[in-house]
Amino acid sequence: MEIAILVFDGLTALDAVGPSEVLWRLPGAELRYVGKERGPVQTETGPLRVFADHALKEVAEPEILVVPGGMGTRALLDDEEVLDWVRAVHERTRWTTSVCTGSLILAAAGLLDGMPATGHWLQMDRLAELGAEPTGKRVVREGKIITAAGVSSGIDMALELAALEAGDEVAQAIQLSIEYDPQPPFDAGSPEKAPEAIVELVRTRAAAREPAR
Amino acid sequence: MEIAILVFDGLTALDAVGPSEVLWRLPGAELRYVGKERGPVQTETGPLRVFADHALKEVAEPEILVVPGGMGTRALLDDEEVLDWVRAVHERTRWTTSVCTGSLILAAAGLLDGMPATGHWLQMDRLAELGAEPTGKRVVREGKIITAAGVSSGIDMALELAALEAGDEVAQAIQLSIEYDPQPPFDAGSPEKAPEAIVELVRTRAAAREPAR
Repeated sequence: MEIAILVFDGLTALDAVGPSEVLWRLPGAELRYVGKERGPVQTETGPLRVFADHALKEVAEPEILVVPGGMGTRALLDDEEVLDWVRAVHERTRWTTSVCTGSLILAAAGLLDGMPATGHWLQMDRLAELGAEPTGKRVVREGKIITAAGVSSGIDMALELAALEAGDEVAQAIQLSIEYDPQPPFDAGSPEKAPEAIVELVRTRAAAREPAR
Repeated sequence: MEIAILVFDGLTALDAVGPSEVLWRLPGAELRYVGKERGPVQTETGPLRVFADHALKEVAEPEILVVPGGMGTRALLDDEEVLDWVRAVHERTRWTTSVCTGSLILAAAGLLDGMPATGHWLQMDRLAELGAEPTGKRVVREGKIITAAGVSSGIDMALELAALEAGDEVAQAIQLSIEYDPQPPFDAGSPEKAPEAIVELVRTRAAAREPAR
């Protein structure tokens, strides 16, 4: 089972690695990190460099597509080479998925027109401008498209996907393997739960510094 | 503020990327991905390749050390070059931390003798053999050493560390930025919570396949 994970400069590393950590444990899974070209890409995280081990043209029919987000998505929203690849691959996927601002790429490719979808909470207006119908949910499944909220939500999305692909027991075994028993020290992980001052702080900082940080 | 993250072949990618995604957002943070040599390392995840942008000898006094885990830790437990570096760096860190089986490396370096610590739930006996006193907690802080449980726990650990370094508001802003409002589809993330059959499945598989998967 081929699983393609799009990678690009300005990627948020956890958007790609959260789902990777779940999905590579699926029986028969073969992950491909797919870039415009093979070679290193500079994530926005760290900034850690990761490798694209495949180029777009080398991956034509993955069963699962994962499109992560990050500040680098901005440059991809009018990149026809990437958008064409996403559209072409989507024709035959079993699941087309995104994490965070990765849903902006799916929307720019025309895959989310009029569809419920989610993404990073700071980018909901942009998602709507691109034709989707944003919801506040953490994971939105609509047909074969699954979009997830910001950054860390890719882990939840991937566990749901693991259950769809391989059953609840396998998904639970993966959850236990990665000891995903979250115990954040604060309850500030969504704009509904965080103190208003924190929401404003992040909003202001994001406006000054560009998306999703 | 220099933050060194040890990377090595057989690393679990999320062990390193979870904390990275939190810590690079700290004001003034400069992350270094430190390998025995500079260059690519093959994680066990995917398998994704990531880059060591610094060699051990190039990073002498990081304020924070993060030691991730993975199947590759086994080869490091008697690697004196790595253990010497961990010991030397620890002398001057403000915080020395580990995720998952990374605590085995700290223990092998002699940093956890007789100390409460944690790590991946499947490796608690090994952690005790190496001199630590394993606890079932998700994050254990003992002096300036913070150990975290399996894989995904590095996110929780790093948020706690962010609060210690920069205050609760900054940590909450980071939590909101990465939208860490976990909603796993199952409640099977620890051996106490998972169905017994799932615990046995993971235990059996791990025994056959080597640690922590």
